[in-house]
Amino acid sequence: MADKGQVNYEASDLYRIRHSAAHVMAQAVLEMFPEAKYTIGPPIEDGFYYDFDLPRSLTPDDLEHIEKRMRQIIAGNHPFVRKAVSAEEARRIFKDQPYKLELIEGLEKGNQDEYGNPLAEKPEVSIYTHDTFVDLCRGPHVESTRQINPAAVKLMNVAGAYWRGDEHNPMLQRVYGTAWRTAEELEEHLWRLEEAKKRDHRKLGKEMGLFYFSEDVGPGLPLFTPKGEMLRHLMEDYVRQVQTRYGYQHVWTGHLVKEELYRRSGHYDNYKEVMFPPMVDENVAFRLKPMNCPSHMTLYREMGRHSYRELPLRFAEFATLYRYEKTGELTGLTRVRALTQDDCHIFCTEEQVGSEFGLALRLIQEVLARYRFTDYRVRLSLRGEGGKYVQDEEKWAKAEAALRAALDESQLEYFEATGEAAFYGPKADFLARDVLGREWQLSTIQVDFIQPSRLGLSYIGEDGGEHIPVVLHRAVTGSTERFLGVAIEHFAGAFPVWLAPVQAVLVPIADRHVGYAREVAEKLAQEGLRVEVDERNERMNAKIRDAQTQKVPYMLVVGDKEMEQGGVALRLRSGENPGAMPMAEFLGRARKEIAAGE
Amino acid sequence: MADKGQVNYEASDLYRIRHSAAHVMAQAVLEMFPEAKYTIGPPIEDGFYYDFDLPRSLTPDDLEHIEKRMRQIIAGNHPFVRKAVSAEEARRIFKDQPYKLELIEGLEKGNQDEYGNPLAEKPEVSIYTHDTFVDLCRGPHVESTRQINPAAVKLMNVAGAYWRGDEHNPMLQRVYGTAWRTAEELEEHLWRLEEAKKRDHRKLGKEMGLFYFSEDVGPGLPLFTPKGEMLRHLMEDYVRQVQTRYGYQHVWTGHLVKEELYRRSGHYDNYKEVMFPPMVDENVAFRLKPMNCPSHMTLYREMGRHSYRELPLRFAEFATLYRYEKTGELTGLTRVRALTQDDCHIFCTEEQVGSEFGLALRLIQEVLARYRFTDYRVRLSLRGEGGKYVQDEEKWAKAEAALRAALDESQLEYFEATGEAAFYGPKADFLARDVLGREWQLSTIQVDFIQPSRLGLSYIGEDGGEHIPVVLHRAVTGSTERFLGVAIEHFAGAFPVWLAPVQAVLVPIADRHVGYAREVAEKLAQEGLRVEVDERNERMNAKIRDAQTQKVPYMLVVGDKEMEQGGVALRLRSGENPGAMPMAEFLGRARKEIAAGE
Repeated sequence: MADKGQVNYEASDLYRIRHSAAHVMAQAVLEMFPEAKYTIGPPIEDGFYYDFDLPRSLTPDDLEHIEKRMRQIIAGNHPFVRKAVSAEEARRIFKDQPYKLELIEGLEKGNQDEYGNPLAEKPEVSIYTHDTFVDLCRGPHVESTRQINPAAVKLMNVAGAYWRGDEHNPMLQRVYGTAWRTAEELEEHLWRLEEAKKRDHRKLGKEMGLFYFSEDVGPGLPLFTPKGEMLRHLMEDYVRQVQTRYGYQHVWTGHLVKEELYRRSGHYDNYKEVMFPPMVDENVAFRLKPMNCPSHMTLYREMGRHSYRELPLRFAEFATLYRYEKTGELTGLTRVRALTQDDCHIFCTEEQVGSEFGLALRLIQEVLARYRFTDYRVRLSLRGEGGKYVQDEEKWAKAEAALRAALDESQLEYFEATGEAAFYGPKADFLARDVLGREWQLSTIQVDFIQPSRLGLSYIGEDGGEHIPVVLHRAVTGSTERFLGVAIEHFAGAFPVWLAPVQAVLVPIADRHVGYAREVAEKLAQEGLRVEVDERNERMNAKIRDAQTQKVPYMLVVGDKEMEQGGVALRLRSGENPGAMPMAEFLGRARKEIAAGE
Repeated sequence: MADKGQVNYEASDLYRIRHSAAHVMAQAVLEMFPEAKYTIGPPIEDGFYYDFDLPRSLTPDDLEHIEKRMRQIIAGNHPFVRKAVSAEEARRIFKDQPYKLELIEGLEKGNQDEYGNPLAEKPEVSIYTHDTFVDLCRGPHVESTRQINPAAVKLMNVAGAYWRGDEHNPMLQRVYGTAWRTAEELEEHLWRLEEAKKRDHRKLGKEMGLFYFSEDVGPGLPLFTPKGEMLRHLMEDYVRQVQTRYGYQHVWTGHLVKEELYRRSGHYDNYKEVMFPPMVDENVAFRLKPMNCPSHMTLYREMGRHSYRELPLRFAEFATLYRYEKTGELTGLTRVRALTQDDCHIFCTEEQVGSEFGLALRLIQEVLARYRFTDYRVRLSLRGEGGKYVQDEEKWAKAEAALRAALDESQLEYFEATGEAAFYGPKADFLARDVLGREWQLSTIQVDFIQPSRLGLSYIGEDGGEHIPVVLHRAVTGSTERFLGVAIEHFAGAFPVWLAPVQAVLVPIADRHVGYAREVAEKLAQEGLRVEVDERNERMNAKIRDAQTQKVPYMLVVGDKEMEQGGVALRLRSGENPGAMPMAEFLGRARKEIAAGE
């Protein structure tokens, strides 16, 4: 179903509520510190902030006081009034506010908005007033302070921030707040924050012993323990199986190539900044691969003449790529320097673009469902104005129409983003919400009209003539590392049974049950289950608690009774306690749940 | 079974026969070109050569003539007579032979043997004479020319060779010959040469479309096609399964680390030459991993405190390593710059070294048998004299005894090589013969006393104190690339069914059978077989011939009769023709052969 146009936060009521709450907060702060200098206070995702230059640091008590005063101001039902002013007039109003004067100067020059961001057109200077407070502001705001729900506003914390983000400027105090329509929405938001902290994949990754970063190896270069590697392996193995079923073939092209190839493909100019430094000897420079396209295309060419009968050819590879992200921007597994893409390049004719795109859509839907991502939408990025796009009106029109038709047929929710296409062709990105409602860009399908010709690819058509194939770039989960980071948070570490690195832990009650526990473990392993025996000298309850921390799906307690009857006593990580059962019954249950993707 | 002492080629009858044949050849050449200058002529693997400075290039006719004359000399039954001479006397004898005079000078100085190789001790100068020919020579030779079997000698070819291998010296003509005990042995050798040419993995790799090298990517950096990647995948997947069954765990540590880590581990000094150039920015230098040990040990350490209860810990990884081999030394897949080791590091106590070594021996035996390598022996490399070995008498003695005991128990054929150990501990290498009798060093197990302490590893012992673990380095197939190269030649491309990238090709007789062929292919794929349909517009015989070139195990011909009966007509790559059978019968046969490793 086409949902034309991206949801526009700036046009939403929440944006107006938060923007207005920021003004109300600034009023309260100024009342408390009349000598305060105030700077900017925009709405942000899930809330707002305001930056102040204050005579002293704010305390938690101050925040409480400010919040209380905000509720009083809100109760006053003061209207927000906009007024266009000349720069001269604005300078008079803010004569004691040096930061505002700097902003006015920018507005007057016509190259910056009131937040100091660059602007294309010279804006009108305007102010917004409510009660005693006046701010340099383009809006929009609610009509009156009573449209801010006082039960749905909360100040969160204070942090340091340099004026205009520049460390050479004075350090300001940034007060963060959040505002919602209802107290319930606020509650839910606070729960999500709390839950996100608990689910943070860096925290869970450590608790569950999945991966580590080492100063000795380097930033952004994760090391995966046996459990972490098992997750990687299961994820890649699963996608490989699906890809094979969809007629994809896998190739292998290593981790580095001559720099010269990237100069020819055009990547050098566009990606130089994110490439690792070159490996240079006297004769040649090599680069770690930041992407696979030139390698897959080179393989296609080296394989010799291709006939239209071979197309579409779908080359998939789980290749670790290296990108030299700034160390300050690295975040656990979701922003790394080593990323293993489940990459694919589909070589096809122009006529096959639509059906190949549709096939990729179905494949992605199947995989996302397996990971219980069911709430997602597709952004269809189309060509806009401007010279960056490859000039071939007919190709663009045909490809865009083919993609739109395939999306319409797919019944997927999608919206169009004009001017967001890559320079080489239109693309579709999957934006999936996790259980906390956060949106992640995961899968992508991109049409490419340009690289195949730059790298000299061809096929012999039905007409006997030489043609240039179109290439579709496609990634399903994106990268193993990032997807794993997202999945850890999505599942809060409690992976579905099929994906759990350890599926069952045998918990012998006393030392005399260890032999039997090993026997059971051995049998289950032979049946293909991933099983451990907890042989530590600990009490049963401690072992169960630890297995729950590790989010192991099945805990199998074995004592005298179980030994006698040749069974196990099953407990689940949820706390449920199905109790004693014969081995076969447990095995049947486990198999059923694995097959069902539970 | 211990076979103490390596088989010594120099002490063998074949060595004496070949050395003597080289003298006989030189006599024949000198008779043909009295002005010839002769240089050196040693026995080599499978034969001998002699280097001459001649007035003109030798032709194939010349070789025939020389070979004929050699048989006459042999028939003369001339004794080989040794005589010790002074350098003075030698100079008189070879007064017209400048190369010999140069050699005599080396012998006199006492630092070179008669082939110009460096020597530890000053040698006695000696000459060998038979018939009219005299050579500067230390022997050994047969007693008389009749001990060379004239029916088992053959001249092979002529090639250029610089005097002493130095391109600044004159270019000589090197005549290669081969000599055996019997005509049958010679025949077999010639067959092996012919067969080796046919089986050359570079040739077969191209014919079967398995891998390519591209100038655009770089020398020694193979690109694997879908079929080649499938081989890699099946090989690694198989070893992974075996390793898992043997209690190994898999980890993932990426492809690069900070150079500093290699300085600490000691690899920088020993491996600098084979590392790719560094990737350097202002703050740090990274290196592509030439080996995994420091990464696995760093992971062990980052995982936190280890207890003796966790040991042995076996970390395995299929990691692509990069070694900057000289381009002139690269050979197809058997000498590459990108090698994916099936590497493992076993962290254990000193007491566990013997049992872990034994476990690794059994694992290797199982894997080699799967690839039908049954003829192999183990070289047990022990410490020798000299300062390079880590100084810890007790550790060496214990480890060497443990390895010997495990080998004795394993019933493997092994020999001891004193002074061949690594500086950090004793090791065992598997030398396996392929079907052509060529010996390849594949698997290795190495004991390491030193890196664990350099990189700060420890575990808490049963005594509550801190101890340093011993590490065993172990590789089964060595590297995926090299082992695949060897396996292609070993199987002549006709991989066992379980390993064949394509297991069955459907051959529809006419266009009207294509639909049915696809249906059958679909069903077989669902049963887990790797199947293709040959839909080309070719005659059936051409399709069968091509499938045979591709060494596909099963060709399934389908025509009217098969469609009617719902069956297939089976042909084998061997040329056998089992004929028409129901689908179920074929499937049963395939499954049985796959399970049997056929």
